[in-house]
Amino acid sequence: MNNLPIGVFDSGVGGLTVCKEIMKMLPEESIIYFGDTARVPYGNKSKETITVYSRQIANFLLSKGVKAIVVACNTASAFALETICSEIPVPIIGVIKPGARTAAAGTRNGRIGIIGTEGTIKSGLYKQFIQQINPSVEVFGKACPLFVPLVEEGMADDWITKEVVKRYISELLDRDIDTIVLGCTHYPLLRKVIGEVAGEGVSLVNPAYETARELSQVLTGGKLLCEPGSAPHHIFYVSDGAEKFRDFANSILPCEIIETKDVNVKTF
Amino acid sequence: MNNLPIGVFDSGVGGLTVCKEIMKMLPEESIIYFGDTARVPYGNKSKETITVYSRQIANFLLSKGVKAIVVACNTASAFALETICSEIPVPIIGVIKPGARTAAAGTRNGRIGIIGTEGTIKSGLYKQFIQQINPSVEVFGKACPLFVPLVEEGMADDWITKEVVKRYISELLDRDIDTIVLGCTHYPLLRKVIGEVAGEGVSLVNPAYETARELSQVLTGGKLLCEPGSAPHHIFYVSDGAEKFRDFANSILPCEIIETKDVNVKTF
Repeated sequence: MNNLPIGVFDSGVGGLTVCKEIMKMLPEESIIYFGDTARVPYGNKSKETITVYSRQIANFLLSKGVKAIVVACNTASAFALETICSEIPVPIIGVIKPGARTAAAGTRNGRIGIIGTEGTIKSGLYKQFIQQINPSVEVFGKACPLFVPLVEEGMADDWITKEVVKRYISELLDRDIDTIVLGCTHYPLLRKVIGEVAGEGVSLVNPAYETARELSQVLTGGKLLCEPGSAPHHIFYVSDGAEKFRDFANSILPCEIIETKDVNVKTF
Repeated sequence: MNNLPIGVFDSGVGGLTVCKEIMKMLPEESIIYFGDTARVPYGNKSKETITVYSRQIANFLLSKGVKAIVVACNTASAFALETICSEIPVPIIGVIKPGARTAAAGTRNGRIGIIGTEGTIKSGLYKQFIQQINPSVEVFGKACPLFVPLVEEGMADDWITKEVVKRYISELLDRDIDTIVLGCTHYPLLRKVIGEVAGEGVSLVNPAYETARELSQVLTGGKLLCEPGSAPHHIFYVSDGAEKFRDFANSILPCEIIETKDVNVKTF
C-alpha cells in the first residue's frame, strides 16, 4: 500500500505548482497527475458541472491505485471536495483549507484578502473556513480572471501584467489587508509581481506549499509514507493536448517529464 | 420547412456577434442558439475534441428541427466543418470562408493579417482559403489569446487593452498588411481599438457580417427564407450558466433575450 502513488488533479496545468511543492517536500513519493485540459477552465463553470468532472477524475485516479488524492484546483476544492470526500475510500485533500489555516494564523491586523477565479471567490469558501477558525477576521475576495491567461501567455514578468495586478490588488490594499491568499494554482507563478505591488507589509500565502505540508502530515499520520529510499515514478495524464502540456510542465517542475498520456476521463 | 429556425452555435458567448448580424440582415428569421459554455474555450483544444463537440451540437440543433446551421465559432469552423458537413442533411455555413473571400477581394497590396485564437491560427485555414482564391496573396497569422478574456472582463475600452492590442498587432503592421481579418467572434467587440491601433490605411474584415450575408444568399438560393411578415422567435441554449449567459447576451443583442435554457449536449 505505502508505495502506491499519490493522485493529484487540476483543471489543467495550474496544479503543477502543487506537484512541484509535493516533489520538494516528499521527494521519494510517486505522483499520478491528471490535468483536465479538454475542459479547462473550471473557474467560470457551475458547482454541478465541476462536481461531475471531479467525480470522473477521482474514479480515474482510483482505477490507477492511488493511496491519496490531492485536489490541486481551487474551484474543484471549493465546489466538489465535500461531496467527493464521502464517496471515495482514500484520504482526499483540497487546496483551500490548508491555505485558509495559514492565513488565519498569520494575519496580525485581522484583515485578509483572497484572490482567485470567479468560481473560487463566489463560493466564499476561503472566507467561511477562515472565519470558522477565527470569526473576528475580516475577509475580502477579489476575482482576477486575467491572471491565468497572462501566465499562460508567458507574460508573468511583463509590465502589462504588473498594471493588471495593480488594478486587481488596489481594491484589497485600500481595505488595509495585511495578508493575501494566492487562491488559484497559477498565481504562485505571479508571486514576484504580486509581492512588488502589495509591498513588504503584506504577507503572501501560497496554498500549494501549505497543501503539500498537509499531505505530508496526513501520510505520516496514516502511516502511508513510501518506504525510505524509494525511487519515485511520476505519470502525467491529460484529457487533451499531451504535447503542449509536457512543454509547460517541463518549464515548471524540478524533474523532466518523460510520459504524458491522453485519456478519455468521461468514461469513469 | 421555410418557417423552421436557423441553428447557430459557438463555444460560448462569442457567436452572439454572428447572431446580431443575422438578426439585422434577416429580421424575420427565428434562431436557435447553442453556446457550449461548459466546455469553453475551444481555441486551445485539439481537432479531434472539437469535432466530437461540434457533432454533438449539430445533432442537438437538428433534433430541434433547424433548416440550416451556422457554425459561429472560428475554431469549430476550422477544425470540424468539413467532417460535419458530410454528415448532416441541411446547409451548414462556417465563419471562415465568408471572411476569407471578402479579405481576398478587398486587399490592394496583397498582404493580409489574420488574428484569432491559437487553434484558428495554427489551423492555417484562413490562409488556405484566401490563397485558393488568389495564390499570390501573402497571409500572416497572429494568435491573440488575451483578447477574449479582456472582452469578457468588460475591458474592451480600457487603455490596458489598447496596449495589448498594440503588442499583438505591431507584428502584422511591420509586415505592411493592408487588411486584418477579425478571426474570432469576440473580436468585433474590440473593433474600435483595433481600428485605432491599425490606422486608417488598414481595412478590418468582420466575418460575422460576411457570414450573415452568406447565410442570406444560401437561404434565398435554396428557397428557404421564411414567409414575409413572420414573427421571429429566438431560443438560447447553453451547456452551463444560463443566467450569466443571458446577462452578457442582453448587452450585445438588439433584442431582449427572454429564454435561456441549460441542456446536456453530450447525449446527442
